[in-house]
Amino acid sequence: MARGDEPADLALVGGRVLSVFTGEMLDADVAVVDGSVAGVGAGYRAADEVVDVSGSILLPGFIDGHMHLETTKLTLDQFARAALRWGTTTVVLDPHEIANVLGVPGIRSLLAGAADVALDAFLMVSSCVPASPFESSAETVMADDIAALLADEPGAIGLAEMMDYPAVVAGDADAVAKLLAAQGRHIDGHAPGLSGRGLNAYLAAGVRSDHECTTYEEALEKRRLGMWVMIREGSAARNVESLLPLVLEHGTTNCLLCTDDREPDELLEHGHVNDVIRRAVSLGCPPADAVVMATLNAARYHRLHEHGAIAPGYVADVVAVEDLERFDPVRVWKRGRLVSEGGHLADVPPISAPDWMRASVRVPRMSADDFAIRVDGRARVIGVQPGSIVTRALVDEPGRSEGRSVADPSRDLAKIAVIERHRGTGRIGLGFVRGFGLRRGALASTHAHDAHTVIVVGVDDHDMAVAVRRLAEIGGGQVAVGDGTVLAELPCPIGGLLSDLSVEAVAASARGLEHAAAQLGATLPSPFMAMSFLALSVVPELKLTDRGLVDVTRFELVPLQA
Amino acid sequence: MARGDEPADLALVGGRVLSVFTGEMLDADVAVVDGSVAGVGAGYRAADEVVDVSGSILLPGFIDGHMHLETTKLTLDQFARAALRWGTTTVVLDPHEIANVLGVPGIRSLLAGAADVALDAFLMVSSCVPASPFESSAETVMADDIAALLADEPGAIGLAEMMDYPAVVAGDADAVAKLLAAQGRHIDGHAPGLSGRGLNAYLAAGVRSDHECTTYEEALEKRRLGMWVMIREGSAARNVESLLPLVLEHGTTNCLLCTDDREPDELLEHGHVNDVIRRAVSLGCPPADAVVMATLNAARYHRLHEHGAIAPGYVADVVAVEDLERFDPVRVWKRGRLVSEGGHLADVPPISAPDWMRASVRVPRMSADDFAIRVDGRARVIGVQPGSIVTRALVDEPGRSEGRSVADPSRDLAKIAVIERHRGTGRIGLGFVRGFGLRRGALASTHAHDAHTVIVVGVDDHDMAVAVRRLAEIGGGQVAVGDGTVLAELPCPIGGLLSDLSVEAVAASARGLEHAAAQLGATLPSPFMAMSFLALSVVPELKLTDRGLVDVTRFELVPLQA
Repeated sequence: MARGDEPADLALVGGRVLSVFTGEMLDADVAVVDGSVAGVGAGYRAADEVVDVSGSILLPGFIDGHMHLETTKLTLDQFARAALRWGTTTVVLDPHEIANVLGVPGIRSLLAGAADVALDAFLMVSSCVPASPFESSAETVMADDIAALLADEPGAIGLAEMMDYPAVVAGDADAVAKLLAAQGRHIDGHAPGLSGRGLNAYLAAGVRSDHECTTYEEALEKRRLGMWVMIREGSAARNVESLLPLVLEHGTTNCLLCTDDREPDELLEHGHVNDVIRRAVSLGCPPADAVVMATLNAARYHRLHEHGAIAPGYVADVVAVEDLERFDPVRVWKRGRLVSEGGHLADVPPISAPDWMRASVRVPRMSADDFAIRVDGRARVIGVQPGSIVTRALVDEPGRSEGRSVADPSRDLAKIAVIERHRGTGRIGLGFVRGFGLRRGALASTHAHDAHTVIVVGVDDHDMAVAVRRLAEIGGGQVAVGDGTVLAELPCPIGGLLSDLSVEAVAASARGLEHAAAQLGATLPSPFMAMSFLALSVVPELKLTDRGLVDVTRFELVPLQA
Repeated sequence: MARGDEPADLALVGGRVLSVFTGEMLDADVAVVDGSVAGVGAGYRAADEVVDVSGSILLPGFIDGHMHLETTKLTLDQFARAALRWGTTTVVLDPHEIANVLGVPGIRSLLAGAADVALDAFLMVSSCVPASPFESSAETVMADDIAALLADEPGAIGLAEMMDYPAVVAGDADAVAKLLAAQGRHIDGHAPGLSGRGLNAYLAAGVRSDHECTTYEEALEKRRLGMWVMIREGSAARNVESLLPLVLEHGTTNCLLCTDDREPDELLEHGHVNDVIRRAVSLGCPPADAVVMATLNAARYHRLHEHGAIAPGYVADVVAVEDLERFDPVRVWKRGRLVSEGGHLADVPPISAPDWMRASVRVPRMSADDFAIRVDGRARVIGVQPGSIVTRALVDEPGRSEGRSVADPSRDLAKIAVIERHRGTGRIGLGFVRGFGLRRGALASTHAHDAHTVIVVGVDDHDMAVAVRRLAEIGGGQVAVGDGTVLAELPCPIGGLLSDLSVEAVAASARGLEHAAAQLGATLPSPFMAMSFLALSVVPELKLTDRGLVDVTRFELVPLQA
């Protein structure tokens, strides 16, 4: 069929095709056979199905180089419906959220339906479950688990972000065992701010990428030393603007795009990888370069040798757009099958999660007193920064009331609590946080990276207790509470992380939560997303786990009292 | 040691390091541990051995993306002595010359000493032995052989040039079986002039590179469709000048460098990959781009994930040069070991070939009458072009003498003969050739791609017979004969392809042969190299095998009579 002797299965005729190998736009027809590209060039017009794509630009299907499905709260089928519509045809998943709750069986179950979903979902095996010794996960992933998953899980390609970079740099035996379990595969990194000799040690251990760069200087140092820089634009962490000079000055070598964490409403309404591309282009990135980073480069980093290009021998993942500004797909083909047209969500067979993944939230019944804090004078305060998952380590004097240290909304000082929820110990870490803007009420979630404890931010202890109780009732998810009343919620009964509902319903609930949060005074964009990172003890500077405050820079627990 | 807590094995201090990831020159020290780079940055100065490289530029060791060792006539140890001196630290070999003579055992034997030679020698398993049905090889390499070599030969990484591109394009069962035997590995191509739908079919079959592009337009079409373009600068085929615009206009994506075939004297005196880099730079290529193509890009194409950069976790192959024009290495480290300094050849343990590889030249005793030709009127003539292995299909009237068709030096018309030499059949193909400039005598060789028959070009039948007889006596190699006397020779008793001698001695003999050829009137540069390609029935347009003239474009035997 490539020879043109017989009709192809599908011919896309009359369009312009971006060659990711030269950056040129080619006037070319595309012939597809058995889900792969057979021919690109003038005159491939004989096929069982001929589609006129004149006026369209054909791009390779977009690849998300690193993402956590769990942040979308969607099962893979519902995620695929929206992702395919936006032209994302391949994702590289690190399912370490579900792994913290449900272990290796959780990882396998998350991907169980992948073969039936048009989307290609590859697995980077979660490396740091729990993320650090300060976090109370339900389950662990050890070196043996990594080796087993790499050996027999379909689509397993490498080792996911080695977040415990201090352990790698220190040559910790467990960390080294995990790296060795992935020998011969590629290893993702996660090393915010790591520099100099520590960075060299991390790389010498075999790590090859990083998606935590927040400044040009940081990314440049890492790239110079061979790291693939994954330029991330998530719902909370938005790095395209800071990192784009890296591409403008030194080209696209070793650069790719990823979303890492995207909220369901943003996914449904604004886009996915196409939104990252659009953002880059809007900031001055040549369109072909932006697409290359989201296709060929992502594929090459991940050693997916048949992905990332519209070229003979490659999988026929094709996105038709009308311009190189909006990147709004008008048609999307996955392995030669039309999966979205005119902006409609893809039609994907449903996946249902088994019962053993449910009822995972175990906390004692809590009351306002459980959130009481007493410090003398000044306290450490987590300083949240919009658009970043890196916090600042602040110090301030809490409010005082009846001998207790309390929130003070007038100074944007809220309380934060993290509660162990896998074993029902009720172990609680307490602290203060600035940056949410809450005037009243509380926000709570079982999305609390990475152990997915219960996390709650509030200015009223009673509302905090109500929120936590509600989470326990619905089996996990997210709630907003004001004046003792649940204002909005998104149940996530699958491991306390994923919803059973459609992407439309989940997005609506997510919007409802954001609306409720705004009513409570929240000024932070994506406050639930921001909150979910405040327990992540591997991203600087100051975080809270159920064991207390963690100074991530020094990688040790520190007292609340400053 | 990367952390700087303990001294490294080796520190290269005070130099400038080229980052192939950004194209920048970094002021950085380099720490080496266990043959790998542990650290790159300021202050790696504590080591068991500290070398001051101030004033030097440190480049990653050069990689030859595609070459045939046999063309150098050197065993791997002798080749390594010269290649390392020029900064080539990794070669990707296709040993299809020896395979045509000695089969799979020949391939294994050629690489047998590789572990002891400092050079990294990777194997692309020869795919087309014989190169075509028109060639009379002694041995074959079939799909099963390919699978076996890929499974158990150390350093086997992929399938070497699929030269029989018509068979691939036609979907020939044997060709498909070979491609399938290499499934999951990368596959080199060889498709001079292939374009349009045929090219698409070749790529759809899984081929990913080509080193036979001779024009910008050809290379651009191939690159647009995803092919890696290996820009070749060999002794006979010199493509850098024609193909460099590809890099200047569209960057280095999918471009790498190779030598393919280099004569021993050129290797010893002018250089190896460094000479290709120098050539590219002299023609206007930015130096960093030229180096990237000879290092990182070659490594990435070949999926050698720890080669091609001076960066932590990469093998410590480092070339120190004083400028980015001459690319004349002043020091070379291979896996952290100094292997060349001040232009001295590397010290490499000797490899000796076993006896079963010898005495492979079997031809009946020949006389002048065996070379007699009789055609009526016009004959097909092979037109040799300097600097290209593509010939032209000419037609001309041979000279006449005593009823026979003879050479006519006054019109640069020589005779050419190709003689089966593996089974002693004496089967001979006869023809005419233009372009050598021979005034008298004959040149003969058992280097005759790819079946390595005997090939002889001459203007005197008696000298042609003397030359062939001498080749049989010395077990193969190359000879120049004038007036019935052997003027120069290079014995290659190992399979009729490789010498037992040092690179210095082989280079001296090669020079002697070229000098003798010049005395006989030859005006062609590298006449023996040019001659060796005249039996290669997979490079257009007109070639000669022991079965007769081959019209490569039509891929069929054609009569001498025009």
